[in-house]
Amino acid sequence: MHLKVDLIPRGPYQGVVIVVDVLRATTTTPLLFEKGLRELFITASLRAAREYAAQGNHLLLGERDGLPPEGFNYGASPADLAKFDFTDKTAVMTTQNGPKTLPIVASAHTVLFGSFYNAQAVSDAALEIALQNNLEEIAIVCAGQEGLEGLDDTLTAGFLAKRIERNFNAKNIGKLEHQHASQLAVHLLRAFPDPQEALVLSAPGQLLQKLNLHEDIAFSSLISQTNAVPVLREVIPWQPSNIYRFENLNR
Amino acid sequence: MHLKVDLIPRGPYQGVVIVVDVLRATTTTPLLFEKGLRELFITASLRAAREYAAQGNHLLLGERDGLPPEGFNYGASPADLAKFDFTDKTAVMTTQNGPKTLPIVASAHTVLFGSFYNAQAVSDAALEIALQNNLEEIAIVCAGQEGLEGLDDTLTAGFLAKRIERNFNAKNIGKLEHQHASQLAVHLLRAFPDPQEALVLSAPGQLLQKLNLHEDIAFSSLISQTNAVPVLREVIPWQPSNIYRFENLNR
Repeated sequence: MHLKVDLIPRGPYQGVVIVVDVLRATTTTPLLFEKGLRELFITASLRAAREYAAQGNHLLLGERDGLPPEGFNYGASPADLAKFDFTDKTAVMTTQNGPKTLPIVASAHTVLFGSFYNAQAVSDAALEIALQNNLEEIAIVCAGQEGLEGLDDTLTAGFLAKRIERNFNAKNIGKLEHQHASQLAVHLLRAFPDPQEALVLSAPGQLLQKLNLHEDIAFSSLISQTNAVPVLREVIPWQPSNIYRFENLNR
Repeated sequence: MHLKVDLIPRGPYQGVVIVVDVLRATTTTPLLFEKGLRELFITASLRAAREYAAQGNHLLLGERDGLPPEGFNYGASPADLAKFDFTDKTAVMTTQNGPKTLPIVASAHTVLFGSFYNAQAVSDAALEIALQNNLEEIAIVCAGQEGLEGLDDTLTAGFLAKRIERNFNAKNIGKLEHQHASQLAVHLLRAFPDPQEALVLSAPGQLLQKLNLHEDIAFSSLISQTNAVPVLREVIPWQPSNIYRFENLNR
C-alpha cells in the first residue's frame, strides 16, 4: 500500500482520500457531526447554498472572507459552533476554499474529512477502509490556499500520515510506501512539537487573527477530540455548483 | 520586498529568481564555474545538446536517468566533475529535470542557480541585485520532480531563504515579507539540522543511492564551498528546445 500526501489537490484519486482544510472546514465539520448533525450538504457556491437550504429547510452556515454571509444561521467558526447542539439537524455549508477540492477528489473510493480534531478517528477509518477493500492508496489531500501549499494543512497532513504509518506498521502486513510529499509533511512535524505554532504562522491563521478569531486557531489545534468522521455519500448535481452530501461515518 | 518560495515552478517571475535543483544540476553548475568553465549552455533536449555542442565544439555533459548518455564527455555527477579542470572551456549540459524550469523563469529580471554548495554566494548576490535594481521580489524556485515538490529542493530553498532574510534584516531597511511556501521551507530546516539526511530521504537521493552515486549526495550537502554563481545571460532560440547560456556572475 502507499501513502500519498498532496500539498495541493492533484487528482485523480482512486483509493481512500482524506481532505485536509484544518483552518477551518475540516475542523468544523467533524465538530458539527459530534454535536449531532445528521447530514451536511457542502457546496462552493453561495447561490447554490442559499437555494438548497431554502428548498430543503436546512440550516445555512459558512463564510466568505472568514465571516458568515448575510442571512446565514451560523458562520464557520468551530469555537462558536461548539456552543450549540445540532442533534438530528441538517445543514448546508459553503466556505471559500475547501469545497474547491471536492470535484477533484469525488471520484475516489472513499472521501473523508480530517484534521487534528478527529486525527485518531480519521486515521483509523482510512486504514480500515483501505484494508477491507483491498485499496492500494491512502491519499491525504491538502486543500491549500488558492492553489498554493499551506503550512497549516501540510503539518496536519504530516500528523495524520504519521498516525496511519504507525497503525499500518503495527499490523505487520508489509511495507507502507511514501509518495509525493508524504516524507516532507511527516518531517515538518519535527519542526513543530506544538502544531498551534504552525497554524498561527500560516496564511489562514494570520487572517483569523486579524478577524479576532484566534479562538478558532486554538480550537483547531486540539487533538483527537471526537470520533466523528465526515464521509462523502453522494454528489447532487446542482447549478452553478454541485452539492456534496456528507454523513458521519462513525454515527 | 518579499521573499517567495515556490516548491514547484509557478511563474511568471519579475524580480530575482534562484532556481534550486540541488540533486544535482544547481550543485554541478557552480562547481563547473568554480573549476574555471567560461560558458555553460543548458537545454532540455538531448538532440539540441548534441547539435549545439557539435557546431560550437563545446564539451558535452549531462544525464538521462542519472547516467551520462552515449557519446557524452561527462555525466552530471559533481563528485566526479570535481576531479577535472575546466579553465576557459565551454560546455553544453542537458539534464532530465532542471532545464524544464528555465522557460518558466527566463522572463525574470535575473536568474541565478543556487544550492548548498554556493549558498552564501548566491544568497548575497540575489539580495544585492534586488536592492541595486529596486526589485520587489526574490523568488526561490524549486525545480521539483515531474511537477511534484521534493524534500531535497524544499530544504535547500529554506536554507537560502533563511540566509537572505538574515542578510536583509542586518541592513535595517524595512521588513521582508514571506510569500507562498517561504515559511514552510524555512521551518522545515528545523527538522533537519543535517541537510544530508533530507537529501538521502528524497526521491532523487534514493535514485542516486541505487546508482551507487551516494558520493553526490555527500557532495551536494557541502555548504558554501564556492563563490561561483551561475547567471542566465541569454536565451538562444533552438529546435526542439531553446539553449540557455549561463556565465559565472562572480567571475
